[in-house]
Amino acid sequence: MYREAIKVLDCTIRDGGLINNHYFTDEFVRAVYVALSEAGIDYMEMGYRSSRQYAPPANYGDWKYCDDDKIRRIIDGVESKVKLSIMVDAHRVLEQEFAPVDQSPIDMIRIATYVKDVDKAITLTQKCHDLGYETTVNIMAVSTENEFDLITALDQLAETPAETIYVVDSYGYYFCEQVEYIVKLYQKHLPNKRIGMHCHNNQQLAYANTIEGIRHDCNLVDASLYGIGRGAGNCPLELIIGFLKNPKFDIEPILKVIQDYMIPMAKEMEWGYTIPYAITGILNQHPRSAIAVRATPEKDKYVEFYNKIIDHLD
Amino acid sequence: MYREAIKVLDCTIRDGGLINNHYFTDEFVRAVYVALSEAGIDYMEMGYRSSRQYAPPANYGDWKYCDDDKIRRIIDGVESKVKLSIMVDAHRVLEQEFAPVDQSPIDMIRIATYVKDVDKAITLTQKCHDLGYETTVNIMAVSTENEFDLITALDQLAETPAETIYVVDSYGYYFCEQVEYIVKLYQKHLPNKRIGMHCHNNQQLAYANTIEGIRHDCNLVDASLYGIGRGAGNCPLELIIGFLKNPKFDIEPILKVIQDYMIPMAKEMEWGYTIPYAITGILNQHPRSAIAVRATPEKDKYVEFYNKIIDHLD
Repeated sequence: MYREAIKVLDCTIRDGGLINNHYFTDEFVRAVYVALSEAGIDYMEMGYRSSRQYAPPANYGDWKYCDDDKIRRIIDGVESKVKLSIMVDAHRVLEQEFAPVDQSPIDMIRIATYVKDVDKAITLTQKCHDLGYETTVNIMAVSTENEFDLITALDQLAETPAETIYVVDSYGYYFCEQVEYIVKLYQKHLPNKRIGMHCHNNQQLAYANTIEGIRHDCNLVDASLYGIGRGAGNCPLELIIGFLKNPKFDIEPILKVIQDYMIPMAKEMEWGYTIPYAITGILNQHPRSAIAVRATPEKDKYVEFYNKIIDHLD
Repeated sequence: MYREAIKVLDCTIRDGGLINNHYFTDEFVRAVYVALSEAGIDYMEMGYRSSRQYAPPANYGDWKYCDDDKIRRIIDGVESKVKLSIMVDAHRVLEQEFAPVDQSPIDMIRIATYVKDVDKAITLTQKCHDLGYETTVNIMAVSTENEFDLITALDQLAETPAETIYVVDSYGYYFCEQVEYIVKLYQKHLPNKRIGMHCHNNQQLAYANTIEGIRHDCNLVDASLYGIGRGAGNCPLELIIGFLKNPKFDIEPILKVIQDYMIPMAKEMEWGYTIPYAITGILNQHPRSAIAVRATPEKDKYVEFYNKIIDHLD
């Protein structure tokens, strides 16, 4: 598949940070930045911009805050065309401070929101846009939203300056026909927006659904090194680069950073397909119960877990 | 997705046996049989029927031969509607002995072949059919076949008594558009046959491609417990059962046998997605080089492996 408009965003540090409270080392973040630069990836997401008032620094690493100065120290001296993004939770805080884009290393601000918080997201989008940033609005857990409410939100977002509106399958629920359906719904209500795609791998469909999005003209897609990300993780960057035939991409630096960093890391931190994530995915449920059980000695008691979830739904 | 005609075949013992030279214990094979029976799975494949002359018993476990008596001892006393199948390699042997179907516990014989050996497969199919078995012909590595040759083979197979002709993506190369293409090609040349789908998970697409086959009217699909199978493994049975809404299926016995047997087994035997399998999948290559490297201390030297494969293709 070659379409020049397709851009790839690596969310290794941001979505991966949800596993370790954003405590990645500077060495690792820089190694990822270097690899993505060499591989020709379009965007790298560094983490969240959270307010320290609501997210106390005693509990989180640097990538929960993504201070401009911190990012500058990481990227210093690396030749790169990679644009940098950070994510902001619309439903958590409105008070984040952003420098004007020409005083910041950041190019794009992605605003994560649920449909019910879309008005906060719109306010933040306008603020970030006015400071000169590219903006996206990422509608999380869209597989659980009431469609009337979703359409209302999409119609509002159509009027904002956000360049991209994202389908976010937070629960890893969708299969490809559902991706086609939701992308076409977005396109109908967002005629002048780029559509983004962010998938989770609960049912081993993150890569397949990302391709499905691309087939239906999504032009900003998320992926991560070796699929790292919360719970079952994301679409593996190495696979999407194997699929996209744009000669600007080079898979070798991706393979190298995976062998040097991700494989050792996978021995210390868990992400990727396991049965509890499959169960919450199949049932269109938040993965929090699966994440919780995987941290206990009961982590492989699947029948017990399944029955608990089913009972809870009754 | 509910369509009564869709039948599911579990290939845990057969494709999984390619990892351990078919040395599964009787206890495990029986536990799988019991679980599949309780779960309402349509077929269970027990292994290969190989001739001892070509495959000496010093090198292989019982599931390389699948003697009728052996199978009888495994299933004895279990109430079950599961039909049993075995696989035969058309390109390896023609001399296998089969009892008439009413003297055997086996219901279906699946004949695996490359296009170049299709005439041997047809001879075997006729032989098995005449003995009363259901028969399928499974065209392996179809992603590498010359299309003219493939069409010639399909046209020949259209005239055989085989009920089902399989698309076998042995290399884990296909993505969904390619599945649609090949299934439609089969359907055009096999107007009266059921089409089967057997996928490998090199690019984490085995489940997605199986769904894609189902969407295009494939009605016999392969899967395995926790995706066990050669190299990157197969479509996970637990996911396909989560997808198919036929009330005859029950996921709980599947979850139980996975927690009791597959999770401990996964600590001893390797299967599933790793980068070398992704590389051979992306490049449409036989996984043998990836299987070989995974058994060495160099198993995570991905850049080296990638360059070796690329150089070899030049």
